[in-house]
Amino acid sequence: MSYHSLSLEEAIRYAANLPGIFPENADLQVREIGDGNLNLVFHIKDSRSGASVIMKQALPYAKVVGESWPLTLDRARIESEALQLQESLCPGLVPHVYAFDQELALTVMEDLSDHIIMRKGLIEGNRYPLFAEHVGKFMAHTLFYTSDLGMNQQAKKQQVKRFVNPELCKITEDLIFDDPYTDSSNNNYNPLIREEVEKLWRDEELHLEVALLRESFLTHAEALLHGDLHTGSIFITPESTKMIDPEFAYYGPMGFDIGAVVANLLLNYAGQEGWIKDAGQRSEFRQYLLDTVRDVWGHFSRNFVQLWERDNVDRMARTPGYRDLYMKKILRDTIGFAGCKMVRRIVGLAHVADIDTIADPQVRAHAETIALNIGKALIKLNRKAESIEEVIAIAEQYAK
Amino acid sequence: MSYHSLSLEEAIRYAANLPGIFPENADLQVREIGDGNLNLVFHIKDSRSGASVIMKQALPYAKVVGESWPLTLDRARIESEALQLQESLCPGLVPHVYAFDQELALTVMEDLSDHIIMRKGLIEGNRYPLFAEHVGKFMAHTLFYTSDLGMNQQAKKQQVKRFVNPELCKITEDLIFDDPYTDSSNNNYNPLIREEVEKLWRDEELHLEVALLRESFLTHAEALLHGDLHTGSIFITPESTKMIDPEFAYYGPMGFDIGAVVANLLLNYAGQEGWIKDAGQRSEFRQYLLDTVRDVWGHFSRNFVQLWERDNVDRMARTPGYRDLYMKKILRDTIGFAGCKMVRRIVGLAHVADIDTIADPQVRAHAETIALNIGKALIKLNRKAESIEEVIAIAEQYAK
Repeated sequence: MSYHSLSLEEAIRYAANLPGIFPENADLQVREIGDGNLNLVFHIKDSRSGASVIMKQALPYAKVVGESWPLTLDRARIESEALQLQESLCPGLVPHVYAFDQELALTVMEDLSDHIIMRKGLIEGNRYPLFAEHVGKFMAHTLFYTSDLGMNQQAKKQQVKRFVNPELCKITEDLIFDDPYTDSSNNNYNPLIREEVEKLWRDEELHLEVALLRESFLTHAEALLHGDLHTGSIFITPESTKMIDPEFAYYGPMGFDIGAVVANLLLNYAGQEGWIKDAGQRSEFRQYLLDTVRDVWGHFSRNFVQLWERDNVDRMARTPGYRDLYMKKILRDTIGFAGCKMVRRIVGLAHVADIDTIADPQVRAHAETIALNIGKALIKLNRKAESIEEVIAIAEQYAK
Repeated sequence: MSYHSLSLEEAIRYAANLPGIFPENADLQVREIGDGNLNLVFHIKDSRSGASVIMKQALPYAKVVGESWPLTLDRARIESEALQLQESLCPGLVPHVYAFDQELALTVMEDLSDHIIMRKGLIEGNRYPLFAEHVGKFMAHTLFYTSDLGMNQQAKKQQVKRFVNPELCKITEDLIFDDPYTDSSNNNYNPLIREEVEKLWRDEELHLEVALLRESFLTHAEALLHGDLHTGSIFITPESTKMIDPEFAYYGPMGFDIGAVVANLLLNYAGQEGWIKDAGQRSEFRQYLLDTVRDVWGHFSRNFVQLWERDNVDRMARTPGYRDLYMKKILRDTIGFAGCKMVRRIVGLAHVADIDTIADPQVRAHAETIALNIGKALIKLNRKAESIEEVIAIAEQYAK
C-alpha cells in the first residue's frame, strides 16, 4: 500500500489482517488518540477478547503552533528500529513492536493504556518509587551497549549510519541550542519574565557553555540516544515504566538523555510553585523530586559501571583511571544538557505543562524564573561539576 | 564489467576508451607501479602526445607482512569521493579525478610522476619551502568546510553517512590505539629497544592518555579527515604539494590529520641520526624540520581562523571565547595524535623508511629511542598543551 494517512476504517482493516494479534472473530473498535501534530495514533481493541494494539503512523509534516513543517517519514523507521533495539538491550522498558510497515510509516505496538504519561502523573502529585531504578537501568543498558564500550566498534559505525537523523536533530539544534539565546521569532515566553529573558540573550558566559554543549550534540557520536527523553515520552504506573516515542533517536552524547530526565524532573520541581499550595507539602514533594534526580543518576551510574566491568569490549578502556574520567564526563554533560533543556522550555518554542498550565501568570512567572535560574546555573556549572549533589544544591538554592 | 583485477592489456583498453583523455591515434604504454599490497596502480602514457593518467584499482585484500587481510572494495569509492570533495574545497592540492568506476573499484586520475613521495624527498635531505603553506591550507580548508562550522549541519550528517569507513578505521584503531601498548603479536620492533618497549607496555599514565585519544578517534565526528596523512601520502616538488590516497577518509577529530603531518616530520627528525653524519649539518636540517612543524601549525591555524571569520555558518560558534577554546582543542588533539603516530611507527606493525632503512641496528635503535621518547612526551603533554612551541621544545630535548 503506498503512503497515505489511514482512515479509521482502513486502520481497522489493517489491524484485522495482522497475523497472530487478534482472534478470527474479533470485533475491532478504533479510536484515534494522537494529538494530530506529528502522527496519527490508532487505539484498536477487540471488544470480545479485550486484546488491543496501538498503530502509530507518521505524518509527513509537523504542526507546531499553527505552522506546518515538512518532516521525513523515515523517522517512523528510526523510531521502530530504535524501539526494537532498546527492547533487545533492556526488555520490559519499552513498548513491544509487533510490526513495522515502511511504506505506510506505520508501527504496530503494544497498547499501554493502563499507563499514564509521567508528566501528567507528576502534575497530579503522584510518586513513582520505581521510576529512578527503571530509567537508570534503561539509560545504562541502551547507552552502554550501543557505544564503543559495549559493542563491536565496526558494527557500531554501521549502526551510526542507520540512525543518521538530520531533520529531527535540526529541531533540537535550533530549539534547544540556538533560539533561546537570541531574540528569535521561534521563541515564546511569558511577557512577565521579559527582563530575565533579555538577560539570557546578553549572557556571553552562558552562550559559551551552550556553544560547547551544542558542539558536543553535533559531533560526539557516543551512543544511540533516545533523543527526546522527557517525562512526556515516558508511560508510567507505580510498578512499570515504559520509554516511548524515540523518533529523535541518533548517535550523540550520553549526557543528553540523562540530562533530559533530570531537566524534566526539575521543571516539575519549579512548577510546584503553582500546584501544591501548602508550603510544607510542596517542600516535601520537591524533596521527592530531588531524591529522584539523585537516584536517577545513582541508578544510571551504578548500572553503567557494572556493565563496564562485565561487558567492556575495549581493552584500552580498562586502563586504570579511564572509567572515572568517563563517568565524570557523562555527569558534566548531563548537567549541561539538563540546563539547556530547562531554559528552552521556558523561553523557546515548546513548553511543558508542568509550568505552562499554571493559570495565574504571576505564579507562572515565579515558577519560570525558578526554572530559568536553575537551568542557567546548571549550564554554567557543567564543565566544573564533580557530583550530582551540586545539582540538588542549585535546585534548593533557587526554590527557597 | 564485473570486478576482477585488470591485466596490463585490459588496463590499456580501458584507458583508450576513456572519453577526452587520449587522442584517437594514441600509442598507449602501460606500467604497473603499485607496491601490490593494497592496490594495482597503472601508469598509462601516450608515447606520441605525452598525455598520461594513473588508474588505481583496489584489490579485495591487503598483504601486510605476508598475511592477507580481506578489505572492502568500497574504499575505492571513499577515496575517489574524498579526492573530488577535497579538490572542490581546495583546488590544486590533490590529484584530479577524471573518472571512477564503481564496479571495478577503479579511479582514473591525474598523473603526478613529476612529483616524488615526500618521505623519500626528506630522507634524501631535500627541503620543501612551500610544504607547510600548502598542507596547512589543505587541512584548514578540508577540515573547516566539512565540519559543522563550515557546512550545512544537516548536509554534514548525510556526508558522515557516505564516509562511514569501518574496515579502514579498524586498522587505525588496532595498529595505532591498541597494539603498541601491549605485547601484541602485531607488534614489530628492533630487539635492541626491547627494554624501552616493555616500559611502554607498563606505563599506565601513558595508556590513560591513549585511551582518551582512542575515544576521540572513535566518537568525535568533527570533520572529514584524510585519515592517513603521513609523508608517504604526499607527492611533492619544491613548487607543488599533492595529498594522495585518502582511502582512510572518515569523519573524525581534526587533530588526527594535523598530528599525522607533525608526527611524520618528527619521525624524519629522529631518523636523521642515521642519515646526516655531520653534526652541524644534521642539526641544521633538524632545525628546518622543526621550523616546518611550527609553520604547519601556523599556516593551518591562520587559515582556519580566517575561514572561521569569513564563512562560519553556526551563529553560536561566534560566541566570544569559543573560537579560542576550539583552536586549543585542535592543538591538543594534534599533539596527542602526533605522539600516538610516532610510537606506532617504532613499536607497531608498520614502520617508516626514515628510520627503518637505517642499516646499522645500533644507530637505528638510537633514532627509534629518540622517536619513542618524543612520542611518549607528546602523548603525556596533550591535554595540558598551550602552544606548538612545547612540541618543538620536546623534540629538541630528546635529540640532544
